[in-house]
Amino acid sequence: MLIDDLVNEVKKKQNPCIVGLDPEWDELPNCYRQLSKSKPKPEIVLQWAKDVIDAICDIVVAVKPQMAFYEVYGAEGYRVFEEVVAYAHLKKLIVIDDSKRNDIGNTARAYAKAHLSRKGTINADFLTVSPFLGMDSIQPFVDTALTEDKGIFVLVKTSNPGSSEISDAINKKNLKISDWLGECVRAFGSQCVGASGYSAIGAVVGATFPEEAEMLRKIMRNSYFLVPGYGAQGGSAKDVVSCFNEDGLGALVSSSRGILYKYSENEEYDGSIGMYKEIVRMQTVKMQQEVYGMLKKYCKEMKY
Amino acid sequence: MLIDDLVNEVKKKQNPCIVGLDPEWDELPNCYRQLSKSKPKPEIVLQWAKDVIDAICDIVVAVKPQMAFYEVYGAEGYRVFEEVVAYAHLKKLIVIDDSKRNDIGNTARAYAKAHLSRKGTINADFLTVSPFLGMDSIQPFVDTALTEDKGIFVLVKTSNPGSSEISDAINKKNLKISDWLGECVRAFGSQCVGASGYSAIGAVVGATFPEEAEMLRKIMRNSYFLVPGYGAQGGSAKDVVSCFNEDGLGALVSSSRGILYKYSENEEYDGSIGMYKEIVRMQTVKMQQEVYGMLKKYCKEMKY
Repeated sequence: MLIDDLVNEVKKKQNPCIVGLDPEWDELPNCYRQLSKSKPKPEIVLQWAKDVIDAICDIVVAVKPQMAFYEVYGAEGYRVFEEVVAYAHLKKLIVIDDSKRNDIGNTARAYAKAHLSRKGTINADFLTVSPFLGMDSIQPFVDTALTEDKGIFVLVKTSNPGSSEISDAINKKNLKISDWLGECVRAFGSQCVGASGYSAIGAVVGATFPEEAEMLRKIMRNSYFLVPGYGAQGGSAKDVVSCFNEDGLGALVSSSRGILYKYSENEEYDGSIGMYKEIVRMQTVKMQQEVYGMLKKYCKEMKY
Repeated sequence: MLIDDLVNEVKKKQNPCIVGLDPEWDELPNCYRQLSKSKPKPEIVLQWAKDVIDAICDIVVAVKPQMAFYEVYGAEGYRVFEEVVAYAHLKKLIVIDDSKRNDIGNTARAYAKAHLSRKGTINADFLTVSPFLGMDSIQPFVDTALTEDKGIFVLVKTSNPGSSEISDAINKKNLKISDWLGECVRAFGSQCVGASGYSAIGAVVGATFPEEAEMLRKIMRNSYFLVPGYGAQGGSAKDVVSCFNEDGLGALVSSSRGILYKYSENEEYDGSIGMYKEIVRMQTVKMQQEVYGMLKKYCKEMKY
């Protein structure tokens, strides 16, 4: 099962951290941008993404390409996204398609097919899904995940400042929306808990709200969390510990800017693609050490 | 301004109804599917969409292509979506890009650029936007709408059965989420009310919840509503009246299946593309008559 493969890889690589592939053109190193005389081009984005994947594929379990930064190039960017997923798969990485899709009924089914299904052109392993329309809109993604051994991460508590506006509201069962979503995710996932004890019906839980994360961790003991907001957005290694279970598992901590765009602060950076890749790798190792170190310290039943 | 052009066109055509362009392959008439021996192909979807646009462009003000049914073909489908938008513009139609996008910060900005901006490849007039992440995630879309004279429809109360699960929850200000979202939409829109008295920062309000629509209409007097759920989903002409102001303006009622796929119930249908287009037009006229008739009956200050 996908989720068991993921857990095994996390243990083997001793790394619950993943890298977001967010090609913000203006942030890319000059060595890429000058390839097209600074004109934003999707084929350069593809080369950049492949280079990043090459730099980290032996030390991380997954990458998380963010669709918006590919869609900005239109259909050509969409194709590059498909190619990035394929390349990451070739390098044996799990791919989390961060497209935050959703809609109702047949439309949700079409998105599930487009992004997750083996019959679709993307064929990602996981997809992030927005819950605003209600649980009938999540069901088609769950169905695809169950029948095709894929996974989803439902937005439960995101990392941005405004995330509480809706997720803190109280529903008719007198539950906070984020807690209620947690219960829904748990219920969906109870149908597919793997040998690892975890389910691929997961939740997005931001690193920036550690207290909420602790509560959500209790509600969704068997669900995997995708944890954005580490580093650039303010979440620390200590903060993310509450997203994990005592076994040191149950969460993937994601960073994009803190890994991809730190080169500009590095005084020794010589402007080359080679050194850019080294810095990306170095930052990835640094993050692994920070997070893994904290887990070793705080997780009493650490399993790896 | 876009919103004033929209209002003028609604008055001129006496039609507040629009057509969703949702190419569900299995529902398309045989005359299209047989063009590729029933193998789903995006170029056939393009031909179908152009035919539908040709059949209705003189009697409606806008079309609403639903991205999921194009994305299901991957990058090629995305390109067809771009071409459908361009063709609708060529035929002087306003285009509502129903992609329900959202994300945080820079990522939302990238989506706004991809879908709405004149610098993007889609260049739609309106985009549907999901509010789950909070109002800081809506701001980049509002910014693009304001600077480029475009519009958005924020999901406030959708038409599906599960829509109340989140939108009925009560926030810290003791407001129902849907009412609070209405207030946010009103506030965003107050910056850009046109000569028509309306703003292009609008709301999605389903036809299936007429009582809620009435309340939301009061909260957002100057905002345009996009109203799905008519026909196939159960909303009647009487139900949608509550989405309008007394001037008979303020809402666009959308139907997809009830217009596109009624041919199969038509006993006289001869299987041809020509007659398919006639039926699509006939259904569009029928919907216009139903809704316009109800508005004439119930809107005391009907302006057209």
